[in-house]
Parts: sequence; structure tokens; C-alpha cells
Amino acid sequence: MSRHIAGPEIERLIQLLARLPGLGPRSARRAALHLVKKKEALLEPLGKAFADAAQNVRVCATCGNIDTSDPCTVCCDATRDSGTLIVVEDVSDLWALERVGSVRAAYHVLGGRLSPLDGVGPEDLNIKQLLTRIEAGGVKEVILALNATVEGQTTAHYITDMLSGFDVRITRLAHGVPVGGELDYLDEGTLAAALQARTAL
Amino acid sequence: MSRHIAGPEIERLIQLLARLPGLGPRSARRAALHLVKKKEALLEPLGKAFADAAQNVRVCATCGNIDTSDPCTVCCDATRDSGTLIVVEDVSDLWALERVGSVRAAYHVLGGRLSPLDGVGPEDLNIKQLLTRIEAGGVKEVILALNATVEGQTTAHYITDMLSGFDVRITRLAHGVPVGGELDYLDEGTLAAALQARTAL
Ligand SMILES: [Zn+2]
Ligand SMILES: [Zn+2]
Repeated sequence: MSRHIAGPEIERLIQLLARLPGLGPRSARRAALHLVKKKEALLEPLGKAFADAAQNVRVCATCGNIDTSDPCTVCCDATRDSGTLIVVEDVSDLWALERVGSVRAAYHVLGGRLSPLDGVGPEDLNIKQLLTRIEAGGVKEVILALNATVEGQTTAHYITDMLSGFDVRITRLAHGVPVGGELDYLDEGTLAAALQARTAL
Repeated sequence: MSRHIAGPEIERLIQLLARLPGLGPRSARRAALHLVKKKEALLEPLGKAFADAAQNVRVCATCGNIDTSDPCTVCCDATRDSGTLIVVEDVSDLWALERVGSVRAAYHVLGGRLSPLDGVGPEDLNIKQLLTRIEAGGVKEVILALNATVEGQTTAHYITDMLSGFDVRITRLAHGVPVGGELDYLDEGTLAAALQARTAL
């Protein structure tokens, strides 16, 4: 707000809320107002939830996931097939794949992708721990679920090279036409990949 | 999330964030993830901001505004013309009017509107305190900035009646075509009001 119409605690609340993805300055104001109006039902519980999460959040030493326990909830899930590792760039990719619902595999979160231009090398990513997991045995397949960008694919190639000595099947996500996608709006690379990987009806 | 892929602290964070206006379940997840990834820069400061606000938030005994001090920031602003009171239904209306920037008046927040159907009567609103302020003298004009709804207008009439014995000018916001509004999309009531209140060029 250009002029002060509320106390510094509320102005600070708006400022910080505006830094959340999906909330602009306007919706941050609306959210802050909603919060102070629902002090007992929302403001206090959220304050406690933030403090609890902040106190417990940590990086899983096994897979690189971010959670409030180490090993993380996913690594502790005994119903998963630990023989299949899905390698992702970021925790958000893990969450996205879990929304599919049918995934029963374990994960490995790299924490980024190789990017020489940004100075991100192999030692900056959670790759050494991936090798340790595979050396320990039991992993039969590594699914590289990296972004279909130049950097994602560079990272995929690097990992494929690192794993060439192991008796592990390495796969990647299929390229193709998104479900519901219109050909008209697709880039040529996707169309070429979809043609190449065409399946019989 | 249908399956547990994160600890209870994170699940709770998502649940509570989804109750903020402007954040659906999907953006609440994204916000929660952003928060746990930015523990020191965002999660901890926001937890503190929430606690600070929760500890200090109160209703202004003078005007009914919600703030972290009583009297509130607006009531304490000596640069405002305390001879003009803008009566609004909700704190959000006060904030909206303040965004206009040119307002230099004081406010009175009713905390709702008369609604016999919802069992909201005059005693449920901050009306008695409005009369006390006017009885104390010094108020020359009361601007009724209530919503242009049936209930808002009922409330406006009720307050007008209550103030009829006082030497106070009572005005309301003008009805008309919104700036940038297309006639085509306006309801007939607005168009009729705009015609009625037409101004000379
Ligand atoms: Zn883990
Ligand atoms: Zn006040």
C-alpha cells in the first residue's frame, strides 16, 4: 500500500504473502485481510503450521526429496517397488508424478539439472548418492523423468554414461502428443518425436 | 494428496493454504513446496509474521476496522479529515477505497449489512458506535459507501433514518457506468441510474 492504512505486522504479512507463487500483490492483500479476520480459524493455525514445518523440514539423505522426516515419506513407503528409481530434477516433479496415482516406484531427486552456463556441474547435483544407491544393488530400472529441455536431456545423457557399467535398465519418459493436445499448436520437435514413436492400432 | 507423499506437517500446510482466497488445492501445493524449499527466506519469516499478526490483531473500538493497534492506523492518522466519515460494510471496502488514493476521510466499519434472512439485525452491526461518534460532534458529512445490493441499500436507509435528527450531511456513492464499462454488458438498473444521474457536457 502506498499509504499506511494498517499496522506494520499486517503490511509485512502482505509483503511476504505476495512472494508466494500464485499470489500477486492484490491477492496477497486479500489473503492477509482474510487471515486477520479469521484469527483463530486460520491465522493462528497457519502460524503454527509454518513453525512446525520450518522446524522439521529437511532433505532426505537417501533420495534428495524435501520432507519433514529423513528418510522421507516416499522412501519409508514399504509398498513401493524399490527396484525402480525415477530420477527427477526437482521435488515438484516428484509431486507431479505422484499425482498420476499409478506410480509405485521409488524416486531420486537431483536438485536441478546440469547447466554449464549457470555453473551447475555434476558435483552440484545429487548424482553421487544415485550411484551409491545403484552400487548397493537391488535397482533394476532407472527411469529418467527429466525435463524435455536441452539441459534436462544433457543431464539425462550424463547419467546414462555414469550408469553404463551397471546392470540396470535405463529408460526415459516417452515424447509425444500431450493427451488432449492439438497438433496445430505443437512444436515440430514434439511432432517429429510423436511420428517416430508411432504405435500400431 | 490422495496418497501420503509428504509428512503430516506439509500436508497440513497445504490444507490450510488451500483455504486462502485465490489459492486452490493445486496452487496451495505449489505454494507449500515453494515454502519448504525456501525455509530461511520465506517459511520462517512468514511463520513469525503470522504469529506477530495473530498476537496483535484487534478490532478498533472507534471505527470497527481490523488492525494491529487500537485505535487503528487510520483513526490515528492526523492528516485525515475527521469531519467526514465514510461508512463501509467491511474492512475490505475500506482497503478498496484507500486504493483510490485521494480519500482523506475517516471511516466507520459496520462489520456487515442488515439481513433479516440471515438474522443480522442493527444490534449485530457496529451502528451504536457510529451514533456515539456523531453525538460527540465534529462530523459534518457521512458518506454511505455500502454495496449497491438490496441489503446494502436497506442498511443505508436504516442508517439514514437513525441520523435524521443530527445536523449531518448524508451522501452515498454515485451509481453509474463503471469507467471502461461497456453499456452492452451492464444491467438495466445501472443503466437507468446512469441515465437519471446524467451530467451536462
Ligand atoms: Zn527419500
Ligand atoms: Zn479505527
